[in-house]
Formats: sequence, C-alpha cells, structure tokens
Amino acid sequence: MRNIPTDIYIENGAVKNHGGEIAELGKKAMIVTGRHSSAVNGSLDDVKAVLESQGIGYVIYNDIEENPSVETVYTAATAAVKYGVDMFVAVGGGSPMDASKAISMLAKNGIVCENAEFSESESVVKAEKCELPDSIAKVEELLYTPAKLPFYPIVCVPTTCGTGSEATPYSILTSHIKQTKKSIAHKIFPSLALVDYSYLKTSSYSGMKSTCVDALAHMIESRLNTNANAFSRAYAEEGMRLWASCKGCLETDERFAHMTDDEFSTFMQASVLAGMAIAYTGTSIPHGLSYTLTYENGVPHGKAVGVFLSGFLKKYGDSIEAEYVVKQLLDFDDLDAFRDYIRTLFGKLDMSEELWKKDRDGILANPAKLKNYPFELTADVLDDYVRYYNA
Amino acid sequence: MRNIPTDIYIENGAVKNHGGEIAELGKKAMIVTGRHSSAVNGSLDDVKAVLESQGIGYVIYNDIEENPSVETVYTAATAAVKYGVDMFVAVGGGSPMDASKAISMLAKNGIVCENAEFSESESVVKAEKCELPDSIAKVEELLYTPAKLPFYPIVCVPTTCGTGSEATPYSILTSHIKQTKKSIAHKIFPSLALVDYSYLKTSSYSGMKSTCVDALAHMIESRLNTNANAFSRAYAEEGMRLWASCKGCLETDERFAHMTDDEFSTFMQASVLAGMAIAYTGTSIPHGLSYTLTYENGVPHGKAVGVFLSGFLKKYGDSIEAEYVVKQLLDFDDLDAFRDYIRTLFGKLDMSEELWKKDRDGILANPAKLKNYPFELTADVLDDYVRYYNA
Repeated sequence: MRNIPTDIYIENGAVKNHGGEIAELGKKAMIVTGRHSSAVNGSLDDVKAVLESQGIGYVIYNDIEENPSVETVYTAATAAVKYGVDMFVAVGGGSPMDASKAISMLAKNGIVCENAEFSESESVVKAEKCELPDSIAKVEELLYTPAKLPFYPIVCVPTTCGTGSEATPYSILTSHIKQTKKSIAHKIFPSLALVDYSYLKTSSYSGMKSTCVDALAHMIESRLNTNANAFSRAYAEEGMRLWASCKGCLETDERFAHMTDDEFSTFMQASVLAGMAIAYTGTSIPHGLSYTLTYENGVPHGKAVGVFLSGFLKKYGDSIEAEYVVKQLLDFDDLDAFRDYIRTLFGKLDMSEELWKKDRDGILANPAKLKNYPFELTADVLDDYVRYYNA
Repeated sequence: MRNIPTDIYIENGAVKNHGGEIAELGKKAMIVTGRHSSAVNGSLDDVKAVLESQGIGYVIYNDIEENPSVETVYTAATAAVKYGVDMFVAVGGGSPMDASKAISMLAKNGIVCENAEFSESESVVKAEKCELPDSIAKVEELLYTPAKLPFYPIVCVPTTCGTGSEATPYSILTSHIKQTKKSIAHKIFPSLALVDYSYLKTSSYSGMKSTCVDALAHMIESRLNTNANAFSRAYAEEGMRLWASCKGCLETDERFAHMTDDEFSTFMQASVLAGMAIAYTGTSIPHGLSYTLTYENGVPHGKAVGVFLSGFLKKYGDSIEAEYVVKQLLDFDDLDAFRDYIRTLFGKLDMSEELWKKDRDGILANPAKLKNYPFELTADVLDDYVRYYNA
C-alpha cells in the first residue's frame, strides 16, 4: 500500500500558483489537448502563460480525439521526439490525460514513426504525414505488454470532473485491432496534477452528467472491489459523501444552470478522490461492460458505465455492503431510487441483443476484469443488470 | 489542498524492499533513534543492513530521549555536520522522527555548536562536549520562527502506531525555555516513510495503549476541526473505522498478549492515516492540554491526550458530528461507553488544581490552538472535560 505518488494540488488558480513545480520537470513541453474545450474554459491560456512565465518552451498537440487511439498516441509521440520535448502537460478530460501517458512512454523510448512529417504554426503541431500500417501492430504490442519502461514527466490539468486520470497510472486507449477500449499495460503516474474547478464552469449539461457519473462509477466500483484497501476505501467513501451532497445538480437542466462554485468544487474534489481510489483497485464490471458499448455504439463513457451501476449494486454478492454504499454513502432511499436517478439522467439502455451478448460474453472471458470482482459472475447475473435497469 | 508529499509504503519488509528509494536521497545517513526499542524490535538492524547493501555510509545517533529537547536536536545537528551527513533515517516513535526533522533543518543551515566534540565507536556517535547555554536561546528562536529554510531528506521508519510523524510536517520538541512541548514553526515532510507493522510486535502493553490512543486522538481532533477538508476527513474516518475494529485488543493485558498480525497491521495503518489527517488540520484541544501535563508530571503522551478526549467530545459544539464519531466511526454505544473505555486503559486523571488552572488558562490564551476549534471555548467548558472524565 503506497501513497499516490503524484503531487496533487486542488485549489483555485492551481496552474498559475505552481509554475515553479512545473519548471522542475523539464525544459520543453508538449501541451496535449483536444481541439475545443481547453480553449473555451481558459485552461489552455493558463498553461501557456505559466510555461512562458517560467521560460519553458512548448509545442501544442491538439489533435487528441475523444477515446484516443493507438494511432493518435503514436503520431503524437513522433512529434514529441521531433520537437525535442522532455515533458508533457495534458489539458482536458480523460482523453488527453490518458493519451499523454502513452505518448510520454513512447517518446522516451524512441518508438516513433520513421516517415513522419509535421508542420508548426503558432506553436501548434500538425501531422502532415505519418504512415502507420506497417508498424502499428508492433506499437500496439509494446503498449499492451507489461514492462518497466521509462517515461517523461507528465503534468495533468483536468477540466472535467469524471476521469480521475490526473491521479491514476492508467491510460485507456481505443484499439482498432482489438475493436474496443483498453488500458495499456504500463503504469504511468503523472508527476503533478493541478486541479482547478473553475474550468468546469463552461461544461455542458450532458458533459457534466456523463463525467460526474463516471466519477461515481469509479467510487462504487472501487469500494466494492477485491483489491480495496484502507487508502482506496478512504478516498471512495469520502468521495461518495461529497458527490451525494451535490447529486441534485444533475437532475434537471434548470438545476444544472444554477450550480454554485461550491458545487463545482465539490464534484471536482470527488472526481480526484475517485481517481485516487481506482488507482489502488482498478475498476470493475460496469467499466468492463462499457467499453464495447462506447466502441460499437459511440455511447459517451459516463452513460455507458452508468447504465450498468444499478444492476451491479443489485446483484453484488454482499448486499449489506451494497446497501451501505447506496443508503449511507450516496444518500438514496433505496436501490430503486438510485436506478431511477440514473435513468433520469440517461434514459433506458438501448443495445441490440447481439451486441449485448458480445459484450457480456467478453467480460466473462476477461480474467483481468473478473479478478476485481469478489463473487462468481454468470451470464444470468449480467442479464439481470440490463433487466433491472430497463424495468 | 495537496496530496501528502511523502512517499509512504505500508508493507511487510518495507525497509528491505525500498533500499533503492533510500539511495536516491543521499550518500551518508545519520540514523536517528533512541537507545533501546529500535535495537529490540529489529528495525535498527534492518536499516543498517539496507544502508550497507546500498553502499550508503552512516553514523548512528541514539541519544534521542522521549519528548526530545531543543538541546538534543542542536547537539545532534552538530554531529550531523561534523560527520558529513546529507540525509537522515529516523527509526522509532514520535521522538526520533520529530527530532530528525529539526536536526535536518539545523544541519542543512549550519546551525551548530562551535565548541562540540564527539566520539565514535562502532558507528555510534556520542557528544563528549557541546556547550549550549550561550547559543540555545538563538537556536530556539530560529526553530520557533516561521521561515522557508531548506533541509536534508528524511526517511522515517516508525516502530509505534501512535505518532503518525512519518506522514506529517510536524516536529514537537520540549522547550525548557517555554517549559512545555511545542511544534517548531517549520513544516518538514519526510521524503520517504517505510512502515512495517512487524516492529510493533515487541511493544509493551502500556506502550501500545499510549500510542494507540494518541492515534485515536489525532483522528478525533482532525475530524472535528476547523481545518478539516476532503483529504483529512477521508483519512480520519477510514482510520477510525480500522481502529474501532481492533479496539478490544487494548482492554486487558490478556487480550493484548494475543494480538494477531492482522490487528497489529490494522493499528499501524490507522496510525498512518491519523498522521495524514492531522497533516492537514493540526490537532485540537486535547493535544493542546496534554503538553503541560507531560512536561510537568511526566504523563506519557497517549494518556495525557486520552484523558481529555471524552470531555472534548461531550462539549463539542456540534453534538451530531460528535455522536457520528463516537457511534458510527468508533462503534461505541454512547459517549459514556467511550469514556469508560479510556478510563479502563488509563484510570482517572490525577492533576493538581494549580497545574490544571495553568494548563487550562494556557490553552485559552493560545490562539494557534484555538483557531482549530470551531466553537467558543471557556474555562467552564474545559473544567467540564475533567469533571466528565473523572465522574
């Protein structure tokens, strides 16, 4: 049992306040982000300003898509090596943060695309050419094979309150070879996490619902987990109490529109605690079931996980523990009330019978996920997840 | 709100397992410890072995007394500079760990005794001469004046389950000028904490009672504290649940004699979590009242704190919060049951009226301690602490 090694600051103005700590990590940064939200919520400007004030050079790689692929991280790593980067600053949600971990490891080990060409304009780097087909299978094998490989330092600036990636060693990528999302085999903790809830304030209602339920799932799946320990329970339980105190904010568009700074701050804290919890335990069945749903049907991650939570709790082998989670920690009257709450956010689960069977049978054949679940799991039990949620 | 920066490993064989991490911190260590227990419980041998295996030179300073004084840390810092030490390994309870923080800061800043002479035998360094009177007031002023001064890296190897010092920035010293114990003004987190419950197994019954109740006090005083935040609550609450699961072990000598490895391990985890909790909040009134009792009457720290806990809970301004702590987290039927439990361990409080008034009025005039307490405090309220405990 080890304290999370990432230096995490949760505070207003976190980016501006900790330039000195960023400067200790490297001389030239790659800012890893998506195309839009980090520009809108002010985080990208804050990061650029602090790097400039510290005299740290940087390039920006803003082509990280949602559910980033192996191809994306390979291309970005190639750019990082070409531009002499020795640290990464990930700005955004789970996609850029997860991607930055894989990019950092590939770049440090020189796993790059030989024939790549990039252009740069106003520090933004674009891939003009990076032919992948020949080598991508090898890159994928390296990413998904356990090994102790070095990586460059990573700073995470989360702008959503869902992923917790700023406090975890996980990097979940989309593999088109595997036709699903899957965490790489390397454990890469960020060096520094600068967490400021003010970046949440431009979130959309649908975005908040999805990310907040992702954090909720992390806490439930960590608290009810074979690998739970004193640290993970501490984080999951406190996180759930915080989360529960604000859960009403997500129920209607109107209520969401009136969220206070304190409520944004509380969700942000819960999200970090949720990340710290799964850093110890990993996730469990709802996350396991979600990846295929997202890959095949494009369902947003939070919804793809959320629809399986009430079934997971209903069929959990220790009903006293499950009830403690639902009533004491999350402050619902009973499990039906919990299910109804999630359905209010996302509606019913609409998934073809064929896809459900593929998903369900995939989990039952996945020992890595099953080992986090302390009871026997069967196709019948999993069918009940869907039946209960849609009842 | 920041993650505790100390790298904490809680595991069997922690010292042996993390030699590489120790080696990253320095080239020559001073082992800071007391005279007896670290030799008996095996921790000193483990530390010597791991330093030797890593090729790290060391001297041993084993003259740290219980409730170490400003004079002690000044003398030890002088030895550290003389022997070219650039890191510290504290082995034992709160006394060597707290001392090592002050020693490290004094040594790094060259605050040493000009006329000191030391002898060395089998790596153990002894002060032969270190004349203090002229300079000690200046050293004391430096220790108790806030400033951002550098310090050498510190590794903590706790062998008790009370202090939590391995996870806090505090260094509580005995000041003969102030005639009490008081934390220095500098915040010095250890770099590394290597926590192995197996060192607890040679503890005496009285030692376990005192240290376990110290940890309990940390959690209660942190949970009910003006400065409580999400991290401190997470650690305090999980710590109390762990502690409560083993509390029966302390009630009789017979039960103590049959403690299992799991129980030792649980108390050790609770103690670390308790330290992490007070790292955010500081302690509150029971700790504030304890120092004079220890300084004047030599009462062991855990008892000196423990006798004030039930009164603190009884008079706490938010009875719902206090009841949650007693019943939900600590699993007592009610507060009387809690008080009776503590009295079973330590007996009644025996303190002269004169000393009590000095102690009580000292707290009421101590803004640093009062600011951690969210309600108004009066002499009447404090008198009730004693009345209730002794009733």
